[in-house]
Parts: sequence; C-alpha cells; structure tokens
Amino acid sequence: MVRIALVTVSDRAARGEYQDLCGPAMAAWLKTAVTSPHDLLTSVVADGVDSVGGELVRLCDEERVDLILTSGGTGPSPRDLTPEAMKVVLEKELPGFGELMRKISLEKVPTAILSRQTAGTRGTTLIVNLPGKPASIAVCLDAVFPAVPYCLDLIGAGRIETDPAVCRAFRPS
Amino acid sequence: MVRIALVTVSDRAARGEYQDLCGPAMAAWLKTAVTSPHDLLTSVVADGVDSVGGELVRLCDEERVDLILTSGGTGPSPRDLTPEAMKVVLEKELPGFGELMRKISLEKVPTAILSRQTAGTRGTTLIVNLPGKPASIAVCLDAVFPAVPYCLDLIGAGRIETDPAVCRAFRPS
Amino acid sequence: MVRIALVTVSDRAARGEYQDLCGPAMAAWLKTAVTSPHDLLTSVVADGVDSVGGELVRLCDEERVDLILTSGGTGPSPRDLTPEAMKVVLEKELPGFGELMRKISLEKVPTAILSRQTAGTRGTTLIVNLPGKPASIAVCLDAVFPAVPYCLDLIGAGRIETDPAVCRAFRPS
Repeated sequence: MVRIALVTVSDRAARGEYQDLCGPAMAAWLKTAVTSPHDLLTSVVADGVDSVGGELVRLCDEERVDLILTSGGTGPSPRDLTPEAMKVVLEKELPGFGELMRKISLEKVPTAILSRQTAGTRGTTLIVNLPGKPASIAVCLDAVFPAVPYCLDLIGAGRIETDPAVCRAFRPS
Repeated sequence: MVRIALVTVSDRAARGEYQDLCGPAMAAWLKTAVTSPHDLLTSVVADGVDSVGGELVRLCDEERVDLILTSGGTGPSPRDLTPEAMKVVLEKELPGFGELMRKISLEKVPTAILSRQTAGTRGTTLIVNLPGKPASIAVCLDAVFPAVPYCLDLIGAGRIETDPAVCRAFRPS
Repeated sequence: MVRIALVTVSDRAARGEYQDLCGPAMAAWLKTAVTSPHDLLTSVVADGVDSVGGELVRLCDEERVDLILTSGGTGPSPRDLTPEAMKVVLEKELPGFGELMRKISLEKVPTAILSRQTAGTRGTTLIVNLPGKPASIAVCLDAVFPAVPYCLDLIGAGRIETDPAVCRAFRPS
C-alpha cells in the first residue's frame, strides 16, 4: 500500500493558535486526483530546521512513506526554514519542481519569486514543498503532479494512478 | 529612513579606467520607481570574492542597509566572481530572482543563460544581482522589483513605496 | 584546433549491453551546426560519481578540450549520478542552461521537471549535460547552443562558428 504523508509547517498551527487549513487542502486535492489506494499520514510541525528536518527523516527512514508533501516555511522570513531542512534531508534535489511552481505562481502574483520551495528524493521517498497558502496548493499540485507517479517509479517507490480528468500523469512508454 | 546601496562590480571601473555607467543606471531607475524617502549609498569595487564579499558584508552588517543592488561580475569569465561572493555572504538564497531575470533577458539575447545572477538575504538586508550592462539593468529591475517591497517587509527591513505607473509593487492583503 | 568531447553516460552502454545512440545523436547535431574545424573525442562511461567525474576531469585537465557534451544520468534514479559528478568537477555552475533545457523539454513532456541536468565551467572547458534520450538531445542543443560559442570566448576556450540556418550563435558586439 502506497503511503503519502502531508506535513503542515507552521509555528502557529503547531501551537494550536490557528486551524491547519493546508493539510486539508493537500488531502482534498489528492482525494480527487489519486485513484489508487493509499494510506495518508498527516502531521503539523513548527518551523525550524530541526523540527521540519526531523519529521521528514522520520517519515522517510522509519515510516517508509513513498511521497511527502509539505506546506509552508519556504519564504524569506526569519522563521521560514523549510528549504534549510530540505538541504539536510535530501539526497538528490530536483530543481525543476521549484522552477515550475514559481513560474506558475508568477502568473498570479509577482511575489512568487520569493518562494524557495523545492523538491527532491531521500532513498525511495519523494518530498515536494508546497506554499503555505491553501489556495496556492492546488495551483502547484496541478502543475507538478503529472510528473510525480513516474518519479516514484524511478526511485523504487510505490505505484500510484491518477484520474486523468484531474491530473494527467505521464509515464514514458 | 530606508537605506539602499548600489554596488558596481568592475575591475576597470574600480581602477578608474572607465566611467561607471551601471551605478547611475540603477540610481536613475530607482529615482523613477521608488517614491518613499531613502538614502542612497554608492560604491565601485573590483571583481573578486573578497572585494565584493567584503563590501556586501560591510553594507549589511555595519551600514545596516535595507537593500543592495549589485551590477556586474555574474558571467562565466575568470574574473566574474560575484556569485562566489554571494555564496559566502547570503544566509538565504532566493532562486526565483535569477530564474526570472534570465527568463526575461532571454527574450532579448540567447546568451542570457550565461548569467549566474541571483538574490538573497543576509539578516535584514536583501541583495539582488543585476547585469553589468547598463541597458539590461532596467529590464531586470522592471521584472523583479514588484516583489522587492514585500520581501523587505518579510525580512524586517524598512518599508518602501513605489510609483505604480513604473513598478506595481505587490503586497498580499 | 577546437576540441569537443562527447561523453555517453550509461551503465548498459558501457557494458556493451546496448548500442550507444546518444554519442551519434550528439555528433550528428554538431555536424550540421558547427562549421569551424574541430576534433571530436567520444567516450562511453558507466554511471557513477567517480566514473563520470574522472572522465570529465581527464577531458578538462589532460585532454584540454574546449567543450564537453554529456548525455544521460541526470534523472532521479539511484544510478543517475551525473549531477553529483558535476558538483565535484565544476568550478562555476551556469544554472540558466538547466532551466532553459527543462523549460523547453516541458513543452513535450511533464516529466521534464525530473531532469537535474546542468552546465558549467572548469578552467577553459564548458561542460553541458544533455538527456539520455537520443530524440531529446537535438531539442536541448537547439535551445542552448546559441549561447555556447560566446561562452567559450569568455572562458578563454577556442572559437567556434555555427551555421546560422541551424544554430544562430550570438556574440554581443
């Protein structure tokens, strides 16, 4: 059974000061797009290299999840440290994910260039950073998810299928 | 009072062998675009990791400027060492700036892909690399400056306002 | 005489299990595009940081080639290690090459974002990574090669001329 983890990165959500809307936004997108059976793990962690990095390592190395989606912590603010955590956790960075998500988001707002979101692999897990704004999550997933199933194939993760009406996953023949 | 520094990076300009045209080009653009009061610091330094890096650190840590624009030294030539200086100085790199400036410049010349210009933050200072050609400076500033005021807000730097007829700065509500 | 090296990176081709089609694809493109005289060196190496890195260093430091084109080994699979070799070999990375090649390839397939291909310089040698699929090699060379001759000029490598009907090389006047 494929395992997908959704990690909301937010000081305030971790302290319970506001409701996590990003985890549900990621889950809602996956529910419409991914048609093959999968387990969903969800967590909320505070910003920080150790808090984010520790959770990502745990999900990769202990929980053996196939795919992790994170949201939040990728901007230039002092507490935005998700990319610093990625630097510690990733074995291979895939710069094309960040490039495409910034390009797509730039069609909406000029501040899209402030995002440092990236993606990459650790062992047989693919990790993709998404924005911390619920409305932007679907925009980014629409853009990059068509490449996710084949990426999982390539790294030896589980196989996932998508609904082509929502997400036209591509696998070279 | 917001402080903005303009750093021309050029061996020949630093030796006085030719007149610095990049500093004035950056200043002219700012004069039309930035409407809020600000101090301008200008300097000309030779190419090199130590010369560029030292000046950037001085401007960030001693002069406490809010924004630094550099011009020059970002190509592949042996004396182009501005990105190497950035690597030493930056705490957080913002890859979206370089991506967008290369994309925009690519509409003019195919050699735009040779530029290694980037941007990023050190403490409460944002540093943005611009090309060493005066004519290309406005092209790049037009592209990325709409994201600069909000970036300064996020990192705790001073607030700047722009003339929307020249530069439509965006701040999420 | 300008020296150009073509390096096919592939475990299976290196073991002779299948015929190298990438080297010939790169050679065929150069034959139509580059009109100035040049020596061609070709090699096939197994995937791996040491095998690829060692060959690149040998071609740069001993063979003193002006330009190296590699194909293969840039994806996220466990045996894709060309970018890791580049990290060891390059003195200056030129991120605009990878950005443009991914952007162009993305017009064909959404999995283009999985490519980690890059380019950069070591001494007076320019190294450019191309995909491991013969059909994609021309697509990428068409996109980035217009900037290659001027890049070679800038790093002190040999001068090459191109047929403008195939590749409109650009040199600022």
